[in-house]
Amino acid sequence: MAQEKSGVFIKSRLEAFSDGIFAIIITLLVLEIRVPHIENGKSIEELLSALLNLLPKILSWIISFFTICVIWVNHHRLFKMYREITHGLFWWNAFLLLWVSFIPFPTALMGDYSNNFLAVFVYGMVMGMMALSFSLMRFYVNRNIYVLNETVDANVFKKGAWISVIMGPLPYFSGALLSMVHPYISFAIYLFIPIYFIFPHATKD
Amino acid sequence: MAQEKSGVFIKSRLEAFSDGIFAIIITLLVLEIRVPHIENGKSIEELLSALLNLLPKILSWIISFFTICVIWVNHHRLFKMYREITHGLFWWNAFLLLWVSFIPFPTALMGDYSNNFLAVFVYGMVMGMMALSFSLMRFYVNRNIYVLNETVDANVFKKGAWISVIMGPLPYFSGALLSMVHPYISFAIYLFIPIYFIFPHATKD
Amino acid sequence: MAQEKSGVFIKSRLEAFSDGIFAIIITLLVLEIRVPHIENGKSIEELLSALLNLLPKILSWIISFFTICVIWVNHHRLFKMYREITHGLFWWNAFLLLWVSFIPFPTALMGDYSNNFLAVFVYGMVMGMMALSFSLMRFYVNRNIYVLNETVDANVFKKGAWISVIMGPLPYFSGALLSMVHPYISFAIYLFIPIYFIFPHATKD
Amino acid sequence: MAQEKSGVFIKSRLEAFSDGIFAIIITLLVLEIRVPHIENGKSIEELLSALLNLLPKILSWIISFFTICVIWVNHHRLFKMYREITHGLFWWNAFLLLWVSFIPFPTALMGDYSNNFLAVFVYGMVMGMMALSFSLMRFYVNRNIYVLNETVDANVFKKGAWISVIMGPLPYFSGALLSMVHPYISFAIYLFIPIYFIFPHATKD
Repeated sequence: MAQEKSGVFIKSRLEAFSDGIFAIIITLLVLEIRVPHIENGKSIEELLSALLNLLPKILSWIISFFTICVIWVNHHRLFKMYREITHGLFWWNAFLLLWVSFIPFPTALMGDYSNNFLAVFVYGMVMGMMALSFSLMRFYVNRNIYVLNETVDANVFKKGAWISVIMGPLPYFSGALLSMVHPYISFAIYLFIPIYFIFPHATKD
Repeated sequence: MAQEKSGVFIKSRLEAFSDGIFAIIITLLVLEIRVPHIENGKSIEELLSALLNLLPKILSWIISFFTICVIWVNHHRLFKMYREITHGLFWWNAFLLLWVSFIPFPTALMGDYSNNFLAVFVYGMVMGMMALSFSLMRFYVNRNIYVLNETVDANVFKKGAWISVIMGPLPYFSGALLSMVHPYISFAIYLFIPIYFIFPHATKD
Repeated sequence: MAQEKSGVFIKSRLEAFSDGIFAIIITLLVLEIRVPHIENGKSIEELLSALLNLLPKILSWIISFFTICVIWVNHHRLFKMYREITHGLFWWNAFLLLWVSFIPFPTALMGDYSNNFLAVFVYGMVMGMMALSFSLMRFYVNRNIYVLNETVDANVFKKGAWISVIMGPLPYFSGALLSMVHPYISFAIYLFIPIYFIFPHATKD
Repeated sequence: MAQEKSGVFIKSRLEAFSDGIFAIIITLLVLEIRVPHIENGKSIEELLSALLNLLPKILSWIISFFTICVIWVNHHRLFKMYREITHGLFWWNAFLLLWVSFIPFPTALMGDYSNNFLAVFVYGMVMGMMALSFSLMRFYVNRNIYVLNETVDANVFKKGAWISVIMGPLPYFSGALLSMVHPYISFAIYLFIPIYFIFPHATKD
């Protein structure tokens, strides 16, 4: 698998590859919600109580769905500012995609053991690492500022990298640690993070 | 995950992301139809009766397949009329994709408990919410008419939003409620809706 | 889900949607080949005999893989000749995609019951319907010849529709019927069809 | 399925089809890591030991993830150099995609029987065949040098085909054979190959 030393990547192909991964991960999540098995298939009461038992799983699916939408928005905004894709940028993006691809595992883990500190902790750590890899990609760009489009203000972008640490990894890692106090505090934090990113924009337009 | 305040989305990337989700959901549906297990693998009669038992599942798969095709057609037509993708439009589209991604669950539920009012009711409610999210996206555009291409007649578009409520959510929610009378009335309605959208066009050309 | 009456489809988006379905179906097929369970995990002989038992499944997967590649080539060649996508063309394409999406089911059925006439018959019938839907799409174009690019010779194209019936549905339906004589005759036919389409081109260039 | 003899393939559609397969394979791999079942759902110790047992599976997933990223990089670089896609190039690419699509099987096999020489041997052989198909595609281009862009130095490209044999299939086949000595030697080789391709680039920029 020898590689020619022939410059940079075609941005649109990397975006399509990344979008494919985002679309598949967001879709695979629903496969975790399985049709419940009930004894008497015609009993409405039995099916109703079985469906109500699924509500926590459905809630966690909704959280993950909108979280991946927020990831997509972030990815889209960053890549819109890039002029070219260097090898470094490719591999920092691959590092991000590694964590995104892993999301189905901690989601299912937290869904099955929602009262277990460790499961809730792992979910926050994985999401924190995913958010951190966004920040690491930004710090790489800060050190290689020529990858930005000319229309982007480099100083604003550089400051944004630091803000991204405060807005992403910090709340997730804090949420992970607070699961030691009570798992529900972590749930509230994990739920609040995507909501925060959705609503300002929905109202602004 | 800080987000730069740098304007609108690139339409083609959002279309590709949405198309990816549509293609994956339409393909995952077939995984619900499993190869039957028969005792005597060489018995043609046994395999024939096992395959005939699958006919309702295959019928429900066909309904869902063409329903998602109709969704794709609608999505494609709406996005062809948009000039730019605002944050509001992105999140209303995400709300639509949430319901589309959920379709495999009510499809499997109705397949397993086709005689249970609640299963048939849930299917209609999910499809109704999916159709309603198309209408909600349209009403958002009605309030932000600048997102439309100049070639689109804004008055025709605005009226179309109201027609979309009558053509989409209304029949699905009615179908869901009529499952209280008999599930087969609902089946007929769920089957008729995609057929209605397919045939006028197939004959017109 | 009201639809605006605003003309034709954007070809590239329909191609991307179709390609997504082809890529997902070709990839899902491998999930049917499961890791065998052996008693003594360290026994090389036991694992070897378990892997040799998988050879028929692996062969059937290879047949299906290259068949879908041939489908992709055909789809690509036809769409390259189209100037615009009408509603009729969209729905004939959707009919083709319905049969393509169904391929994992008859593949698994034939893999599990390879000595059962009915399983081998069903595989050939589904592949025959898939091939027939290519021909039906072509006959639609024959009746609506304006959808072709100006560079395409309409007379050659029209004759090609008849040839496509002889090259696609006919051998598959014949193979399905010959499974009554012996399933292995059908296997040979199903295997020969994609090989026929691959080798002329591989050698010609 | 008659095929018109109308020249070459549209490069972007073949790239999109290939990227779809890469994105799906890289995402399906995570489905192999299943949430462990523990008796006492609230026991942190029990869940911790169950998660630690998954570490080898997670490590093998990480190796496969970055290996497919390296495959994507290679594929992208080669296709950037092609001016047109001939039938021969299409089918050599299909041969490569066959081996890429197969990766989930040897990955799961090696994950389940990591101490069995045969499982570790099969993994290396499949990866070696995948790497060899890159070389075979290059030798095809060497014999049909007109498919290259004018900006590519044909002599450098031709030499690169031989280097690709030394860098790809050779280490994988050697790793497969060395599993006879000890499986861990093979693991180290399989791990080292993607790392070798990642780090020069990450540091260079």
